[in-house]
Amino acid sequence: MILLSDKDIKQIYSLNDCLSAVEEAFRFFSAGKVTVPVRTQINKKSNSGTFLCMPAFCDAYNASCVKVLNMFPENLKVGLSSINAKILNFDTNTGAINAILDGNYITKLRTAAATAIAISKFAKPKCNSALLIGAGGQSYSQLNAIMLARNLQKIQIADLDYERAKALADKAKSENKSSKAEISVADDVNQAVSSADIIVTDTTSTTPVYDGKRVHPGTTICAVGSYKPTMQETPSKVVAQADKIYFDSQDAVLSESGDILTPLKKNLVSRNNFTGDIGDVLNGVLPGRENNSQVILFKTVGIAAQDLFTSKSIYDKAKRLNIDITTN
Amino acid sequence: MILLSDKDIKQIYSLNDCLSAVEEAFRFFSAGKVTVPVRTQINKKSNSGTFLCMPAFCDAYNASCVKVLNMFPENLKVGLSSINAKILNFDTNTGAINAILDGNYITKLRTAAATAIAISKFAKPKCNSALLIGAGGQSYSQLNAIMLARNLQKIQIADLDYERAKALADKAKSENKSSKAEISVADDVNQAVSSADIIVTDTTSTTPVYDGKRVHPGTTICAVGSYKPTMQETPSKVVAQADKIYFDSQDAVLSESGDILTPLKKNLVSRNNFTGDIGDVLNGVLPGRENNSQVILFKTVGIAAQDLFTSKSIYDKAKRLNIDITTN
Repeated sequence: MILLSDKDIKQIYSLNDCLSAVEEAFRFFSAGKVTVPVRTQINKKSNSGTFLCMPAFCDAYNASCVKVLNMFPENLKVGLSSINAKILNFDTNTGAINAILDGNYITKLRTAAATAIAISKFAKPKCNSALLIGAGGQSYSQLNAIMLARNLQKIQIADLDYERAKALADKAKSENKSSKAEISVADDVNQAVSSADIIVTDTTSTTPVYDGKRVHPGTTICAVGSYKPTMQETPSKVVAQADKIYFDSQDAVLSESGDILTPLKKNLVSRNNFTGDIGDVLNGVLPGRENNSQVILFKTVGIAAQDLFTSKSIYDKAKRLNIDITTN
Repeated sequence: MILLSDKDIKQIYSLNDCLSAVEEAFRFFSAGKVTVPVRTQINKKSNSGTFLCMPAFCDAYNASCVKVLNMFPENLKVGLSSINAKILNFDTNTGAINAILDGNYITKLRTAAATAIAISKFAKPKCNSALLIGAGGQSYSQLNAIMLARNLQKIQIADLDYERAKALADKAKSENKSSKAEISVADDVNQAVSSADIIVTDTTSTTPVYDGKRVHPGTTICAVGSYKPTMQETPSKVVAQADKIYFDSQDAVLSESGDILTPLKKNLVSRNNFTGDIGDVLNGVLPGRENNSQVILFKTVGIAAQDLFTSKSIYDKAKRLNIDITTN
C-alpha cells in the first residue's frame, strides 16, 4: 500500500498530468461507464459539520475508490482547514487497498482540470483576456488552469478582499515569469467582465458576483463556486441568455447548484436551454462552440468520476516512479 | 494522523480491551444514539467482488468513522485474503482524520467481543462445556471469546476439515497453558451439542451444521456465521423452540441472515418470538436469562456501531501510549 500526502502528490503530479485523467473521467462518465452510488452524508448539527462518503467504480478504466470528505466551516474560525479529505484507491481485481491519498490537493487539481478542459473545448480559439473572480483557496489552481488552456495577454483578478487578490496576482507573476500574460487586480469587476473572453468564478457567494449585462458576445464562462442551492455567483441573466449551457453532470448540478436552480425556479430558463454534459462533447456526441459570437456557460460542481480517475492516475504514476512509502 | 496496521493494533489492543467498547456500542446503538446511513455497495459482476462503504457517527461517544470493506471471495483461489478492510477514524469536532486503521483484525475482534458479551450476559452462571463449530479465519478469536466469558472444563471444536479443527485446538492449547479447560476436536458434532452449555457457530454453511433436537435445556447459542439470506447454520428447529432470541440488531439480522429469514419464511417462527436487541438488555430495558433451563439464541451479523466504538477506543489507546506513526 502506498500512502501519499498532498506534498508527495504535488512533487509527482501536475495540473497538466491531471488534464487527461479528468478528460477520460468526463468521457467515461457520459458513456455511462462509471458507477457512482448516492453519496452518504452525516450532519453534525451542533457545528454545521458534514461527513461525506463518496464511492466510485469504473471497470473499464480499472479504477475503484472511496473519497471521504469532511467539511467543517467553523474550523476557519480557529485557523484550521475547513476541509479534510482522503481518497482510498483499490485494486479492482482483488479489492486490495492500493493507496491512500490526501484529498485536498487532488480536489483542487481535478476542479482546475475541469476548468482547463472546458476553456480548451469551449473558448474561442483566439482569446486575449480572462477574468478570475474569487481569490480563495482554489484560486491559484484555477489561475493555472486558465493559463494552461489559452495563451493570454491579460488576466485580471477580482475579490471582495483587495489584498487577497493582490497577493494572488503577485504569486502568479513571480511563479510564471516566462509567461507573457499581464496579471493584475481588476480595478472594476464589471469593466473587466466587459473586456474578458474568459470568465472564471470561484466564490462562495449567495448573490451574483458581476453584472450579467456586461458580458460580450463570444465569452466563455466557467462557474465553479456554487455547490449549494443557496449559493449563486452567476447572474440569472447570463444563464437565461447564454447560447449554450454545458455541465460536468447536469444531474449533479440540478441537485445542488443555485447558479442554475435559482433562474430555473424563477422561470428565467427552462431545461430545454441546457445543452448537455461536457463528456458528450468530448465523445463527439454533442457539438461544442459553433461560432465566435456565442456566449457559452459551463457549470461544474465536481463529480466523483474526477476523483476516481485522478487518484488512479496518481497511483499509477507513483508506482511507475517506484514511490515506496509502503506500509504493511 | 496515526496509521495502524493489524500488527500494530494486536500489540496494543486485546479482546479484553474490546469488550467494553463493544458493550458501549450495543448500549448506544439501542438507545438510538448511533447514526448509521445505509451502507453503499458496488458489485463487480465478473468476479463476485463487492466494495462496501459503511459510515457511522455517535456524537455522544465523540466518534465518527468510515469502514471500507472489500470482499473478493475469488482471492482465496490465489492465496490472497478474501477481505481487505480499512477504518478511517475522524475527530468529530473538526472532521480531521485522526487515524487510519487496518480493518481485518478489528473485524475479527469486535465480532468475538459480541460473542463474549452475549455469553457473559445470556449463558447460565455455571457452564461446564462449550462447542465451537467452524475452525476458519475467525475461529481463534471466537475461541478466546468463549474462554474469556466463562471458566470451562471442556471446549470441543468441530469442522468439516478435521485437520483444521485439530490445528486450532493445538494452537489454543499451546497459547493457553494456564487454562484448566480441556480443548479437543469433537468426535461427533451432535454428541458434543448434546453436552454443550454453550454453542458458537461461525461457518459459511448454507445448511444447518448440527441437529437441533440434540440441544439441551439451559444451552446458550451464539450464531455468528450467516450474513446472507442463502446462508443458514442454525437449525430452524432451534429458532422455533428457543425460549429467547436476541440480536445485535434485529433490523440488520432480518435484512441479511438466512438463520432467521429461512424459518421466518417457512412460518416456523414469527416476529413475536423475537425478544429484542442485546443493547436493550445491557441498558436494562429488556430482561435477559430468567432461569437455568431456558434455551437462548443470540444471532449477530455485526453492526457498524461495533467498528465505530472499537476503532475509536483503539485510537484513544494509541494516543495515550504516544504511538506516533504520524504522517503529514
